[in-house]
Amino acid sequence: MSEKAPWITYRPELRVLDCTIRDGGLINDSNFTDDQVKAVYTACVEAGIDYMEIGYKNSPKVFPKEKYGPWRHCDEKDLRRVVGDHTAKKTGLKLCAMADAGGKSDWNKQILPCKDSVLDMIRVACYVHQISEAREMIEHCHSLGYETTLNIMAVSVASEAEISKALEIGAQTSAGVVVVVDSFGNLYREQVDYLVKKYMKAVEGAKMEVGMHAHNNLQLAFANTIEAIILGCNRVDATMMGLGRGAGNCPMELLLGFLRNPKFKLRPVLECIQNTILPIRKEFDWGPSIPYNITGQMNRHPRSAMACRAGDAPDDYLAFYDQTIADV
Amino acid sequence: MSEKAPWITYRPELRVLDCTIRDGGLINDSNFTDDQVKAVYTACVEAGIDYMEIGYKNSPKVFPKEKYGPWRHCDEKDLRRVVGDHTAKKTGLKLCAMADAGGKSDWNKQILPCKDSVLDMIRVACYVHQISEAREMIEHCHSLGYETTLNIMAVSVASEAEISKALEIGAQTSAGVVVVVDSFGNLYREQVDYLVKKYMKAVEGAKMEVGMHAHNNLQLAFANTIEAIILGCNRVDATMMGLGRGAGNCPMELLLGFLRNPKFKLRPVLECIQNTILPIRKEFDWGPSIPYNITGQMNRHPRSAMACRAGDAPDDYLAFYDQTIADV
Repeated sequence: MSEKAPWITYRPELRVLDCTIRDGGLINDSNFTDDQVKAVYTACVEAGIDYMEIGYKNSPKVFPKEKYGPWRHCDEKDLRRVVGDHTAKKTGLKLCAMADAGGKSDWNKQILPCKDSVLDMIRVACYVHQISEAREMIEHCHSLGYETTLNIMAVSVASEAEISKALEIGAQTSAGVVVVVDSFGNLYREQVDYLVKKYMKAVEGAKMEVGMHAHNNLQLAFANTIEAIILGCNRVDATMMGLGRGAGNCPMELLLGFLRNPKFKLRPVLECIQNTILPIRKEFDWGPSIPYNITGQMNRHPRSAMACRAGDAPDDYLAFYDQTIADV
Repeated sequence: MSEKAPWITYRPELRVLDCTIRDGGLINDSNFTDDQVKAVYTACVEAGIDYMEIGYKNSPKVFPKEKYGPWRHCDEKDLRRVVGDHTAKKTGLKLCAMADAGGKSDWNKQILPCKDSVLDMIRVACYVHQISEAREMIEHCHSLGYETTLNIMAVSVASEAEISKALEIGAQTSAGVVVVVDSFGNLYREQVDYLVKKYMKAVEGAKMEVGMHAHNNLQLAFANTIEAIILGCNRVDATMMGLGRGAGNCPMELLLGFLRNPKFKLRPVLECIQNTILPIRKEFDWGPSIPYNITGQMNRHPRSAMACRAGDAPDDYLAFYDQTIADV
């Protein structure tokens, strides 16, 4: 099997999604400048990336515009100011936005018909117990003409029965993809295997792909993404330099350096990283530092690690460890 | 299989080796202070780690003492100054040193009989074409009473036939372990699978373990180490905070956070990292930055990336990429 070196060929149906601006927006309240978003957009087009998740379709009531940047709401005028008269046909890139279940999105009002938007896809994110709202959101967006996905978050802390039920419902929706989301960056290879196979079985016969969205708390985001690809996932997420909340995501530069489809080009990604993403490090911290290792290992939301890293003593690992293990 | 959650139990025969001072010595010409070595030693003892590779038994003619610190030669007096009257029996920790084939070590003169040394094991490192000298070194050290291992380096650039021949010879030696060494940090999961299985087949019936020594160019060192463990490797290497030449190694803090043998304790590792390893970052660079991603992906020695990171423009990824792809 491995003797035939499958790692030097490629699967043309594998699609890469960049969520730098969407996931990265959790670091800075989506306050990216137009130039930054344009730079990521340009890199995605030039690099042959399939989808760019340009932000959230979330509610300005819950996320007021005084505090949150345009990429939390993705109003059409803000999108067009940056991407102009973008079409997928012209660029080879499809734009998408994420809408959260649980009252965070005015999805039944905020989302235009697809033909009137530069967006082609809406990704619906929910926790397992929000699956019913997620289903409504998916069908609403589908009826507006969008591609849709179902992203069930924090599966590492959901029970078997909950995941099974959510998948059962998800498989009956019009979503084109159901995504394994490792929100806490907790999953190891064996657990990724188990979940991906479970998801694939659940969508058998449903014309749905399975996707992977990994977080890098344990320096396993790239590895888990490769694992998912090996198992047959055809939708994978990554961000430039792994920019993303907390420990960050699968780094696009590693993913595109690994994938062998000649349409993918690495240099535009490096250019974007050097000129646009690296400067962000002066202001914001992300990556698999030890506090994130610890919350990942403990299967917890990374918020305590984020507070540690943003605080006065970001490298006081012992204090963080002691308070974390005491706090059970 | 995975449903039974093997990741929450452990294999008692799995042994962890810390090579912070040995591999880290490639960053700073082995010029660690006694305090630094003592801190790593103490952490290894307290953390339940099985082996500490405290340096090299390499030649002071090739590595003059004016330039290279004591941990490049591991003279007995230097070892004892730091570890005192160490015994494995008292501490649960075995000390070892690495000797390089290829004329780098005065192994037939430099190495004391095991009963006269605090060292318990000698790891013999070679490239495939040096296997015959490696065999002599192993038998010599074995006759002196040491545990020995065979570490065949840079296998990602050796041919099938070379690896097979080297393993055939290696399996006939007295070495207790043959180690898969990913010197260039190039290996992906499928290649690790292939190599580990090949090594295991080669040593079948020879009472030898297979080990894994990963490098972190592609943020896969930890993942590849887990993979090797899943496949049955019982000897794995790691370093504190991944300290090591270039992209560094599998981080000990991730490995011990993953392993479930209750003898392993994470806190002493975090203490060592915070107090001893982190300060080294002010002076030396290591870790999976983009130049190391590139040499790893291209299956090259990391020396060009090391020069880039030590130079004036460590974050000029585009320049490094352009010069690297032009240089073929």
